[in-house]
Amino acid sequence: MSDESTATPESSKIAIIGVGLIGGSVGLAARRRIDGVGEVAGWDPAPGVLDEALKLGVITRAAQSPEDAAANADLIVLASPVATLAENAERVLAVAGPDAVVTDVGSTKREIVAAVGDPRFIGGHPIAGAETAGVEHAREDLFEDSTWFVTPTPNTTGTGLERLMRFARNLGAQPHAVDAADHDRLLADISHLPHVLANALVTQAAGSINTEDGSIAVVGPSFRDATRVAGANSSIWRDIYLSNHDALVPAIDAVIGRLSEFRDAVKSGDGDEIVRLNEQARADRETLLERDLVGEEVFELRVSVPNQPGVLANITLALGKAGINIVDIALSPAADMRSGSISLWVPGEEAATRTENLISELGFPVARA
Amino acid sequence: MSDESTATPESSKIAIIGVGLIGGSVGLAARRRIDGVGEVAGWDPAPGVLDEALKLGVITRAAQSPEDAAANADLIVLASPVATLAENAERVLAVAGPDAVVTDVGSTKREIVAAVGDPRFIGGHPIAGAETAGVEHAREDLFEDSTWFVTPTPNTTGTGLERLMRFARNLGAQPHAVDAADHDRLLADISHLPHVLANALVTQAAGSINTEDGSIAVVGPSFRDATRVAGANSSIWRDIYLSNHDALVPAIDAVIGRLSEFRDAVKSGDGDEIVRLNEQARADRETLLERDLVGEEVFELRVSVPNQPGVLANITLALGKAGINIVDIALSPAADMRSGSISLWVPGEEAATRTENLISELGFPVARA
Repeated sequence: MSDESTATPESSKIAIIGVGLIGGSVGLAARRRIDGVGEVAGWDPAPGVLDEALKLGVITRAAQSPEDAAANADLIVLASPVATLAENAERVLAVAGPDAVVTDVGSTKREIVAAVGDPRFIGGHPIAGAETAGVEHAREDLFEDSTWFVTPTPNTTGTGLERLMRFARNLGAQPHAVDAADHDRLLADISHLPHVLANALVTQAAGSINTEDGSIAVVGPSFRDATRVAGANSSIWRDIYLSNHDALVPAIDAVIGRLSEFRDAVKSGDGDEIVRLNEQARADRETLLERDLVGEEVFELRVSVPNQPGVLANITLALGKAGINIVDIALSPAADMRSGSISLWVPGEEAATRTENLISELGFPVARA
Repeated sequence: MSDESTATPESSKIAIIGVGLIGGSVGLAARRRIDGVGEVAGWDPAPGVLDEALKLGVITRAAQSPEDAAANADLIVLASPVATLAENAERVLAVAGPDAVVTDVGSTKREIVAAVGDPRFIGGHPIAGAETAGVEHAREDLFEDSTWFVTPTPNTTGTGLERLMRFARNLGAQPHAVDAADHDRLLADISHLPHVLANALVTQAAGSINTEDGSIAVVGPSFRDATRVAGANSSIWRDIYLSNHDALVPAIDAVIGRLSEFRDAVKSGDGDEIVRLNEQARADRETLLERDLVGEEVFELRVSVPNQPGVLANITLALGKAGINIVDIALSPAADMRSGSISLWVPGEEAATRTENLISELGFPVARA
């Protein structure tokens, strides 16, 4: 641990590059929810956005450029379109201080993480959004109870990762460390694929509903739900699909395979197979959605670690892969500044035991506090 | 028109065969929303259901059999599983009076309409439901503002159709007359296909999310929405899929074709094609969902018609095909009882003009009231 472990964003300066719904909500939530946040500088190339952001209290200073916003910032959040992230990362890293943390909120992570080698950069992705875009829809509570992925690498410093995860938690989110490639495969299935299917479904229905010179203007609740995200912002989603193409294409192929299997069961009148596939989906949905950790006892585990980059990243990634949620993290450097300890809080006896085992396997001494 | 045109369900007796969520909600809504509804007799084969229905005020009498429930009823609603509808229809029609109307609430219509030739039977399908099944979840407002399809045939009497549509409207729904085959194709796209896609999506995601011995318990809002109906009741949905197989199989094939088209665009990096498909989906969604007729002026049209079966059915089907919503219908028999007039209320100047043209083309004199 090379830095003051309590370097929370108190009295810190934040820069936001791209002040839309997400960037604006980061600014608003940081200003209202984190004590001692000082300047929130924003930059956006679109005319009028910064004036609006100032008026709404989303930022405290309209910057002239990414560099102007980032020069003195402790935490720099890139919230511009996916295709502009690498360039903006380069521009802010060129002027940011040695202890600054730079992160982004892009929907795919491999490309940007591979493109930006600087250890001050840690990829991020809050799973939050709304049907409305633009700074005028920024909300202080946009990240409340949502997952905020962070994608550390072996170069990531423990202090940087701790600051980023704490920042996400202070905005109301649940930070979750995950490898960038695992993130992109996961998002292909839980976010990109639903958009692709919604588009296919809505266009399919439109073809059958439009009859003669009029239409049957009726849709059921399942259709509304299933197509809520159809036709989302074209340029944003074009970039997301393209940047995640090598996870998305196999995911689409796999879904086509599943649909073909079901079609065959219906076509051949195989009621047992239809029931089997449906029961599988029911069990899968319960597994995915009904895992509620709220109310479980939280255990603190203390880990002794050497002071070198990547240690906290390795630990959080291992826990993330094992499905363990980290409720909080604190770093405590030892007096010699060459070693230290990490406190991790995890929910539930079972997860605490698994955490102890996983960290021991990584070679670090660990004990319950 | 062979009957008193104002034969609304006032002081009428209702029978409900199958007292679950839908049947129970029909009973509750009828008793609370329609003045003068007398007995509501219910029959259900599951133990305890009728006691619960009596306790909740959903029915006023627990019948011993479908025949017992139906013998003196003016309106008989079959709300039992799809696979039992034909048998229950036969049983109640064997005892029902000559002016009784028998309808069902099944999710597919060709099979049951083809199986039941009796002119007293008119297929129906309210687009309403909830994630919860069972009479204990019956709600008076379940049909509020939802579409209630009715599927008349050339044998359907005008009075029967008027009574059924008025009943649906009195329960809070918007009745919509449509040909049974058109209904099934439409439902394949707007209801059955969303269920199939939700199942495929949730099983696909479960495969990628479960890693090692744990899981990443995170799903975004688009995933929750897209998979809300995954794993719906297996036996109900097996019957729905099988009974609509010849509309559903081509719909699945068409969606597979659309997904393949999109996959090819992503794989080849064709951003313009991705945008084109996304813009198409956006336009289709707007067409389907954002057609809001509320607040438009409603026009009354009077149609002179001979007193014979199928006339009102033909007119309502023609308007349904043209996408015209009928807000209300009233029948007025002439003194000679051999001809009469139909009053139709439709929303908006444009729809009123189209209605006039369509009815003229059918060969009936029509004028604005």
